[in-house]
Amino acid sequence: MRLLITGGSGFLGAMLARRLLQRGELAGRRIATVVLADLAPPPADLAADTRVQAATGELLERADALGRERFDGVFHLAAAVSAACEADFDLGLRANLDSTRALLQALRQGGHAPRLVFASSVAVFGSDPGLPLPPVVQDDTLPTPQSSYGIQKFIGEQLVADHARKGFIDGRSVRLMTVAVRPGRPNAAASGFVSGIVREPLAGLPARCPVPLDTLLAVASPRRSIEGLVRAFEATPEAFGGRTALNLPALTVSVQQLLDALEAVGGPQARARVQLEPDEAIARIVRGWPARIDAARARRLGLEADPDALSLVRQYVADHPAALA
Amino acid sequence: MRLLITGGSGFLGAMLARRLLQRGELAGRRIATVVLADLAPPPADLAADTRVQAATGELLERADALGRERFDGVFHLAAAVSAACEADFDLGLRANLDSTRALLQALRQGGHAPRLVFASSVAVFGSDPGLPLPPVVQDDTLPTPQSSYGIQKFIGEQLVADHARKGFIDGRSVRLMTVAVRPGRPNAAASGFVSGIVREPLAGLPARCPVPLDTLLAVASPRRSIEGLVRAFEATPEAFGGRTALNLPALTVSVQQLLDALEAVGGPQARARVQLEPDEAIARIVRGWPARIDAARARRLGLEADPDALSLVRQYVADHPAALA
Repeated sequence: MRLLITGGSGFLGAMLARRLLQRGELAGRRIATVVLADLAPPPADLAADTRVQAATGELLERADALGRERFDGVFHLAAAVSAACEADFDLGLRANLDSTRALLQALRQGGHAPRLVFASSVAVFGSDPGLPLPPVVQDDTLPTPQSSYGIQKFIGEQLVADHARKGFIDGRSVRLMTVAVRPGRPNAAASGFVSGIVREPLAGLPARCPVPLDTLLAVASPRRSIEGLVRAFEATPEAFGGRTALNLPALTVSVQQLLDALEAVGGPQARARVQLEPDEAIARIVRGWPARIDAARARRLGLEADPDALSLVRQYVADHPAALA
Repeated sequence: MRLLITGGSGFLGAMLARRLLQRGELAGRRIATVVLADLAPPPADLAADTRVQAATGELLERADALGRERFDGVFHLAAAVSAACEADFDLGLRANLDSTRALLQALRQGGHAPRLVFASSVAVFGSDPGLPLPPVVQDDTLPTPQSSYGIQKFIGEQLVADHARKGFIDGRSVRLMTVAVRPGRPNAAASGFVSGIVREPLAGLPARCPVPLDTLLAVASPRRSIEGLVRAFEATPEAFGGRTALNLPALTVSVQQLLDALEAVGGPQARARVQLEPDEAIARIVRGWPARIDAARARRLGLEADPDALSLVRQYVADHPAALA
């Protein structure tokens, strides 16, 4: 089968590609080709795989041509991230809304209704003035996004659902949780500290924690996040449970628990590299996020949250040995 | 003040324009000009009012120019209707999604954050496979639209909410219920029979009822629908209660009650003009609509549902004497 991963050179996209190539099959069919569409070229290890093809450039401009290739499956992960969309309103609309619409239109015109998994986000949830978020987010909780990124992801879910209802694609939307621990450089996202307070100290670097220690977060490890995308692809439409987006499971973890896990793995010297520097602007954003997710539909697909904070830190250490001090 | 009504030559748009011109003021300010943007020119009575200006043509093409006019308030009603969007997928995206986005972008570029009321629709609600509609729709019920029209209206709500959050507009979305009794010609909408089984018999014409007599409908009269739009405009942001769309009140009425009201007003000969001709395709669509709405937010704005079926028929007779046999 021929697969397309948009955002395929990003952290999750590349990890998904590696996982699929390692499996060699998806939904019982052999994977012949994985096309990685991204602004950036594929990482070297993926570029070296003969099954990998690169489609490098703006998705919005390439969507038409991609639609003419006959993909059996699509994972649509490409997006401008939340901080960028908040800073540049037009960028978010173009990169997230227009590109998603162009991709769906191209697949529709392809005419063979490929299966598509859309990576939506827990960022669709937020506390609207007058409609606070419930203590536990359920599968039927009304999203009231409080960021342009969340709005655009939620709109993407609607477009995927309607293209699926019309039979243009076999579409499924899943909402990724805050992924921790992400590798790489710190970024400007409000959620950046969640990974940063583990990753930087383990690399011997200082890290700042902008929120109180009792702040609760809904997180998932990279491996569990990838597993959610794959399972969503492989599920029958009936098992997936309708065209509404599915919340992936989340571990509810406090900042304190993350730091305790950091200390258990990296020792007190790692823990000592984290400075508490309250930042009310970030704390206010983080308080607007859901901390508890009852992912009943995901559980029925056999998906579970990570067991605890320690497992998150251990997975990072195991998967990124070169990033440790 | 200078007002824009998109869809201003349509039934509700023209009725809203008449109501505003009759009041002469909105939110405490004198109405100097009402611009009616529509594919069709304004009805003669409105065109004759010196305060009315016409902006006739495609909203998508005119949005930029409209954005350069300095409107104090906008009622955005223009839309392709549900049956048309279901038959022509691209039309719906263009007329409902692209046009709404172009209008919002133009208002944003205008730079003075006008107040905007977006007419969304009860059509955002539907029973998704795996997520049936609850027996009573609440203000926080998750919409899972089952038509392209409903999807596009729901996306419009999201765009309005995000433009409002960013301060580009003072935006409010309200969901209109099925409006009954509509004047004019029968149309192809699945909801067409709701007005048709009253309007046609009163005009001396036969009418078909495609659903069982015990079918429940969530309806609102034209006058109450207009009142909802005006009240939403005049409410403070606090009274409106956030950026999430507000469900207008609905009278829950059975087809039997509508026919009884028809007979009470038009006599047994009017009732006898309605033939029961079950149409399972239409009945299935209608069963997917919500029948009961608990419009708590709307009640806090002082909005109430119509009292009963008889009041709907009487309002139609009072407002459209020329349409009676």
